[in-house]
Amino acid sequence: MFDYKLLAALAAVVEQAGFDRAAQRLGLSQSAVSQRIKLLEARLGQPVLLRATPPKPTEVGRRLLNHVQQVRLLERDLQAQVPQLDDSHLPERLRIALNSDSLATWWAPAVAPFCAAHGVVLDHVLEDQDVGLKRMRAGEVAACVCAVERPLGGARSEFLGAMRYRALASPAFVERHLRDAPPAEALLRAPAIVFGPDDQLQHRYLASLGLEGPFSHHLCPSSEGFVRLIQSGLGWGLVPELQVQELYRSGALVDVYSGPPIDVRLYWHHWRNGGELLAEFTRQLQRSAGQWLVG
Amino acid sequence: MFDYKLLAALAAVVEQAGFDRAAQRLGLSQSAVSQRIKLLEARLGQPVLLRATPPKPTEVGRRLLNHVQQVRLLERDLQAQVPQLDDSHLPERLRIALNSDSLATWWAPAVAPFCAAHGVVLDHVLEDQDVGLKRMRAGEVAACVCAVERPLGGARSEFLGAMRYRALASPAFVERHLRDAPPAEALLRAPAIVFGPDDQLQHRYLASLGLEGPFSHHLCPSSEGFVRLIQSGLGWGLVPELQVQELYRSGALVDVYSGPPIDVRLYWHHWRNGGELLAEFTRQLQRSAGQWLVG
Repeated sequence: MFDYKLLAALAAVVEQAGFDRAAQRLGLSQSAVSQRIKLLEARLGQPVLLRATPPKPTEVGRRLLNHVQQVRLLERDLQAQVPQLDDSHLPERLRIALNSDSLATWWAPAVAPFCAAHGVVLDHVLEDQDVGLKRMRAGEVAACVCAVERPLGGARSEFLGAMRYRALASPAFVERHLRDAPPAEALLRAPAIVFGPDDQLQHRYLASLGLEGPFSHHLCPSSEGFVRLIQSGLGWGLVPELQVQELYRSGALVDVYSGPPIDVRLYWHHWRNGGELLAEFTRQLQRSAGQWLVG
Repeated sequence: MFDYKLLAALAAVVEQAGFDRAAQRLGLSQSAVSQRIKLLEARLGQPVLLRATPPKPTEVGRRLLNHVQQVRLLERDLQAQVPQLDDSHLPERLRIALNSDSLATWWAPAVAPFCAAHGVVLDHVLEDQDVGLKRMRAGEVAACVCAVERPLGGARSEFLGAMRYRALASPAFVERHLRDAPPAEALLRAPAIVFGPDDQLQHRYLASLGLEGPFSHHLCPSSEGFVRLIQSGLGWGLVPELQVQELYRSGALVDVYSGPPIDVRLYWHHWRNGGELLAEFTRQLQRSAGQWLVG
């Protein structure tokens, strides 16, 4: 068997984003945590962590974390069968990567009944929908919501439904930037809002109108901030319909251009041998997500 | 003079979070970007980047980025005086670190008039209010909103006002978790929502009630997701009054415990020789922030 004291130290340093906090979480001194990591590296003959701020797992470190994540889920099943094994009175945690727009809209009502019924708490990790799988590959999460269909080896993916996006702006912004020129070309010159370097939705929308090339844009890595910037007339951007139903109905936000909305299909990825808790979570999510997502 | 081609390559790799995208941004091949970084390192005799994903600046890399940031702001002033120097038709960018709750509430309306008048676009970097200064120290941003008063060497800090937080939950959550036991102790057992490892607001609130020790909590690094989790009855947490005025007024969210709100004082940090654009941004921000923040 592996030495799980060492692996737990590695997991704590990565999950807590530092040696200090890992030590706190484990109830050890910082130097004890540090020694465990060094011992692990000595046994493996290679580093498991890059000593950056925060520390990052190396390739082999990632594989170990992936393994720890799966062992934890299996332990949870065993504890349900043999309750005496349970040495902690804190509730179970599930670590899940998802896109910010899901967390800002349908996610909480979709998973709330499960969490309340099973006493589970969630660690949410934000990752753009096109790249969320890298958190699973890195072994940092038990499951992930993302726009990629193809599962990793050892995992399954299930279609949850699509989020519908509209290209919106404030009426004052449209009046100012998009009124005189033909709207499609004016869009390239008017400032956009982009969530972050991985967000290609605005690019995809412009391409669907036959527009290519660089465009001026604000960067705003927050779903709520994104809508606030649009409302305040700083730019246009693609927003989930779910997030702005009221603002859209009242005319506070309007379409920048006629044309169909963009649907982003979302998939639920989870480890195949992720244990009974994750399987039950998956079943409930599949039943409930359709209330908010487009089939 | 420094070789700014090399420094610009370093800045692009860090700001674009990768060699690929840096090359795209600079209109170079990836190997050209890579060579520039290597040449820079050869001249300095030490690495400027940790080759992680994404690449991270080393200590000396950070100092160089800090310098690039300030040179860019000074160049902007010079271009305003000598417009022929302007070799790009894309608008000016200001890179700013701030806490998610500010971006989700008062920030956009406070800065919108300035951005529209000056044709400036903003790159927002999210960082918890207690640790935002590290982005300035790292040379990644021109300015930052955070809860720390003391400025870095070469920078100034100005008080903007305070955000007022209340400890809130849904009525159903209060009924289920906080009704029978004395509310203060019940709070330790009921699940909380915590923004991320740097978020100490919930800990501070519990400490103000004389409660210490670990408490079960969800992690949710999204301001809007935070409120959605509370609304859905997954936990209690400290929420900016500004963000939930409607929900609080309508009774959809209620105080978990009687007691005063928590005020978080926010400061604006900016480089002293950050140029005229940043100085004007600062003046307008100081005039406008008081409309939303508590004096």
